[in-house]
Amino acid sequence: MRAAVLRNGAIAIRDDVEEPVPGPGQVLVQVKACGICGSDLHFAKHGPDMLALGQQMEGLPDRSEEVLDLSRDVYLGHEFAGEVLESGPDTEAPSAGTPVTAFPVLLRPDGSVDPIVYSNRVNCGYGERLLLSAPLLLPVPNGLATDLAALTEPMAVGLHAVNRSRIEKTEKAVVLGCGPVGLAVIGALKVRGVESIIAADYSPARRALAEGLGASDVVDPREQTAWARAGAAGPLVVFEAIGVPGVIDEILRCAPAQSRAVVVGVCMNADTINPYFGISKELSVQFVLGYTPEEFAASLRSIAEGDIDVAPLVTARVGLDDVPWAFEALGNPEEHCKIIVEP
Amino acid sequence: MRAAVLRNGAIAIRDDVEEPVPGPGQVLVQVKACGICGSDLHFAKHGPDMLALGQQMEGLPDRSEEVLDLSRDVYLGHEFAGEVLESGPDTEAPSAGTPVTAFPVLLRPDGSVDPIVYSNRVNCGYGERLLLSAPLLLPVPNGLATDLAALTEPMAVGLHAVNRSRIEKTEKAVVLGCGPVGLAVIGALKVRGVESIIAADYSPARRALAEGLGASDVVDPREQTAWARAGAAGPLVVFEAIGVPGVIDEILRCAPAQSRAVVVGVCMNADTINPYFGISKELSVQFVLGYTPEEFAASLRSIAEGDIDVAPLVTARVGLDDVPWAFEALGNPEEHCKIIVEP
Repeated sequence: MRAAVLRNGAIAIRDDVEEPVPGPGQVLVQVKACGICGSDLHFAKHGPDMLALGQQMEGLPDRSEEVLDLSRDVYLGHEFAGEVLESGPDTEAPSAGTPVTAFPVLLRPDGSVDPIVYSNRVNCGYGERLLLSAPLLLPVPNGLATDLAALTEPMAVGLHAVNRSRIEKTEKAVVLGCGPVGLAVIGALKVRGVESIIAADYSPARRALAEGLGASDVVDPREQTAWARAGAAGPLVVFEAIGVPGVIDEILRCAPAQSRAVVVGVCMNADTINPYFGISKELSVQFVLGYTPEEFAASLRSIAEGDIDVAPLVTARVGLDDVPWAFEALGNPEEHCKIIVEP
Repeated sequence: MRAAVLRNGAIAIRDDVEEPVPGPGQVLVQVKACGICGSDLHFAKHGPDMLALGQQMEGLPDRSEEVLDLSRDVYLGHEFAGEVLESGPDTEAPSAGTPVTAFPVLLRPDGSVDPIVYSNRVNCGYGERLLLSAPLLLPVPNGLATDLAALTEPMAVGLHAVNRSRIEKTEKAVVLGCGPVGLAVIGALKVRGVESIIAADYSPARRALAEGLGASDVVDPREQTAWARAGAAGPLVVFEAIGVPGVIDEILRCAPAQSRAVVVGVCMNADTINPYFGISKELSVQFVLGYTPEEFAASLRSIAEGDIDVAPLVTARVGLDDVPWAFEALGNPEEHCKIIVEP
């Protein structure tokens, strides 16, 4: 079958990928839509650095068996939705044709686990078909289109960040960066009932999307900072959704005393901070990643029930052959937000 | 009267300081003991840098009137205890001779507030006498010696850090650095009932003090890291009480997933971190500073009631003339921990 893979830092289109065969507890799914994640672009560009940083880290379970081999093809695409084709032996699953999405993890019959993201071993969403785990399958409700169901995953990232922030409705939120991650945060803040949401982005198109998702106020940092717009509002809950060096220190320098920052943008570079800023104002910085299965399911519900309108985020739909073009095109925030691959 | 002041980055001894006169709501106190704080050493060395960093900061109330002038003498000493000499007009206060300490803030009759720390305007603890605010005075109970009552302030810093960490008794604490701040954290953890307290310091003398205050385990980082000693213990609550560049990044790199770090050591330098470490493990970093009046009072109670034995921390007592010597001597962690000035 066909798939777009990462090979030597670039996207290559293969038509000789081995057809996946569902084992017990697994389901073969026809991919209908898979969003391109900013982290896919990051990984294509900085994969070796990411792996090297990962190797330096302690305090994580030993996953040495899962370490990626960048000299081999890497399957990509973790924001997927599709239709059930067939189930493995002795597997209870929705019938063929059911539209589904799933928490992107593949459970093996032997109990081991394969993340369905950046993998040498399992096909991901940039391919015609993939295996999913029957217990993790979520049927797409309310006749929601599969290309919108594919936004369950990125919106779950925002929901998780908002949940970890423990923000109260009466607290004031600032969202720095209105790419897909910042927009997901804004959508989740709105669903949670937070009334004051100041969103900052240089791009007029992204500020318009932010307003559509529920930002109460948007600023162009060239004209006014989010801090100036917030005024003397007391502590803020600040979401860092840019992921470039310098933003954390700007938050420490500018946020009001007792503010909490949630870092959801993934900065792959070393970064410089002045701890003195954070100390003087007793700030906190919570780094967050991913989401729980419950948050993933809640994210699908919010989209399917119309609480979060993700349709305006989708700025293009491409086939596998145009994935390389899409990776380039996503560099322009004025043109594109979320591009959906339809294998 | 006499006082040790900071002049051009060095300690100078003056005998011509104007005698303070208590106004309404104020009390004149004879200083019996004042601890030398690590931040005093920092400030003597890095005062201009600290002020410059402070000027860069936004999000704090306008305190431009309070900005220190380093070309003038700066009064130092905020870890004080003494005896009431006399009260200002219409002031209800303990009678003369009562041993007292106080949250280090001077309330003015006009409603303004002067911190009793790094001041061009009000005398602090490195002087024979100072003014305190009657409503903030705490009589020293249980016949506690005033030189030990002077440790109320540094121990309150540890209590505040522990309170902000929200650590549960069953969670495991790691304390990096066993100077006065780290020791105060250990004492507060012990009082809170935390059972597993791993303390790390290069100095055998300080490791011994850590054990005395309640550390369940001490490590010499030359032989074993705190991370290795903690083993696969799950998330840790890590107290950064060293305050030098590189420690925060070491925590991000080495702490187990879902750990929380509390930064109580004051690092005045820019510092480099890898956000990717924090993101990958969903760590949090809480910067903390100071303490509340309630924590200050609780700290005094813990010392006076014998819950925290601070006596072993005091490694020398000096008169005003020997403050310059004490500033030098505190550079050697093997020789000294807390030096008390007795003006």
